[in-house]
Amino acid sequence: MRIGLGMVILCADLAGTVVFAAEGAMAAMMRGLDLFGIMVVAFVVALGGGMIRDVLIGAVPPSAIRDWRYPVLAFLTGLGVFACRRMLHVAPGGHVLAVLDAAGLSLFAVAGAEKALSHGIGPLAAALMGMLTGVGGGVMRDVLLARVPLILVSDIYATAALAGASVVVAGRRLALPAAAVAGAGAMTCFCLRLAALRYGWRLPGGM
Amino acid sequence: MRIGLGMVILCADLAGTVVFAAEGAMAAMMRGLDLFGIMVVAFVVALGGGMIRDVLIGAVPPSAIRDWRYPVLAFLTGLGVFACRRMLHVAPGGHVLAVLDAAGLSLFAVAGAEKALSHGIGPLAAALMGMLTGVGGGVMRDVLLARVPLILVSDIYATAALAGASVVVAGRRLALPAAAVAGAGAMTCFCLRLAALRYGWRLPGGM
Amino acid sequence: MRIGLGMVILCADLAGTVVFAAEGAMAAMMRGLDLFGIMVVAFVVALGGGMIRDVLIGAVPPSAIRDWRYPVLAFLTGLGVFACRRMLHVAPGGHVLAVLDAAGLSLFAVAGAEKALSHGIGPLAAALMGMLTGVGGGVMRDVLLARVPLILVSDIYATAALAGASVVVAGRRLALPAAAVAGAGAMTCFCLRLAALRYGWRLPGGM
Repeated sequence: MRIGLGMVILCADLAGTVVFAAEGAMAAMMRGLDLFGIMVVAFVVALGGGMIRDVLIGAVPPSAIRDWRYPVLAFLTGLGVFACRRMLHVAPGGHVLAVLDAAGLSLFAVAGAEKALSHGIGPLAAALMGMLTGVGGGVMRDVLLARVPLILVSDIYATAALAGASVVVAGRRLALPAAAVAGAGAMTCFCLRLAALRYGWRLPGGM
Repeated sequence: MRIGLGMVILCADLAGTVVFAAEGAMAAMMRGLDLFGIMVVAFVVALGGGMIRDVLIGAVPPSAIRDWRYPVLAFLTGLGVFACRRMLHVAPGGHVLAVLDAAGLSLFAVAGAEKALSHGIGPLAAALMGMLTGVGGGVMRDVLLARVPLILVSDIYATAALAGASVVVAGRRLALPAAAVAGAGAMTCFCLRLAALRYGWRLPGGM
Repeated sequence: MRIGLGMVILCADLAGTVVFAAEGAMAAMMRGLDLFGIMVVAFVVALGGGMIRDVLIGAVPPSAIRDWRYPVLAFLTGLGVFACRRMLHVAPGGHVLAVLDAAGLSLFAVAGAEKALSHGIGPLAAALMGMLTGVGGGVMRDVLLARVPLILVSDIYATAALAGASVVVAGRRLALPAAAVAGAGAMTCFCLRLAALRYGWRLPGGM
């Protein structure tokens, strides 16, 4: 079965939206925000990175504004997490959250790089746009919660997104099939992120 | 008298600009910023939400850049507030500020929703754009002042803007006259906001 | 020799990119960020202001995305600063940093105002865009590091950028030659900034 490029972008984008909206809603609940704040943070984490990417590559209005499925999905996910909040006292261990987060990061890095390429953005900038799509929502969440974005002070996170997006850019340059390239890019990001968590890999530090 | 759509957007936008610029200038003075910082915060609170909206709906350059009346109005208001700062030691009670703020919120929510609709944005996204126009400037102010945006932790504020914007979207869908729809939307937001303040209404909280 | 407008913008932009990327990388190292965080902050400080300007004046994708020289230059500078970090323990005194920073501010203020004018933006907004290009990267750096932007609380900084950009706008209105106008604008900003530092000039304060 041949899977078209548009379908790859759409599926990765929608799946990443659900994962990141859930994560954002949980983070907002832990900070004691009310239902509205939870919905806003879910929306921002899930769609913030893609909206910045779309504005920068000139694809306005961004998908999150033009296509009602994105905001509805983010809000329904936020609502679902809020409704299940009693269960969450016990349920998701750090491991579950970390795997979910790595999955969302991988999906967005791939979708972001593919979309930038399909808008005629050059290879270096397309890889950066993939990374931005992956980490942008989390950065906006941390800015809204008035703390230094985790990705700036912590271990290999954005680097994994950049690696995944770079695999996508390289694969598309070599004219490999869309679905295979997307899969390889997502696996690169996902495995690199989880391995970094598991083995405590870090980049060289400051002074 | 028939009032055209463009005139409704323009009047609501300009009135909201004055109200929010005054509020931003007062907030900046209370934080001890100098004259320049006061002007920047007045500009950001008054025009930040509309600029983000315009970038997202593809109406670039934003009105605040293309139309010199917006920045001039924001700066003159900031200057006026600064000039009258001795009087402000005694003058505006919390009630006055809250009513002014609710008025600005209502005006921007209506203008934002109308403008998004007039650019062909769908109903859900148009309501969100109305809300964003109303609360965006305040969020940018809080981000610049390095604190968690009030709308995320406090009571019914953005929800009132969303309600007002939704009334506008629904009214335009039903092809009701522009001025009546705008008035109904603004009153919805204004009354909801003041009632929430008066009676201490809150949304359900987090964990 | 006649120097064209495009060349003036390009040279000022590239030189400002190197200066600001170096400054951003040093600030990130002092906060203990890892190599990736250093690269991000170098990129943001060097290219953040220009990207916001380009999005606002409708020049998307922004130069920083469309032209690979900008990101490559910012990253190489960040890498160079990181590689030389042992030397930096002793090397740059506050004076060197302040002069570098004033140079970057002047270059960006001029380039930003020229570019806005060349996209048909009106004079007031073009001067504001020049200022935004100069200070935008630093504001984004401070927002990411979760502190109140220095320009809002400190002495004459953004005002110097605004003055330099205004000289450019006025000179271009009078149809003076591009290189002379750019030089006069840059010198205005540079001297004003350094004089303010040297003599402790301040704007009138808040309450």
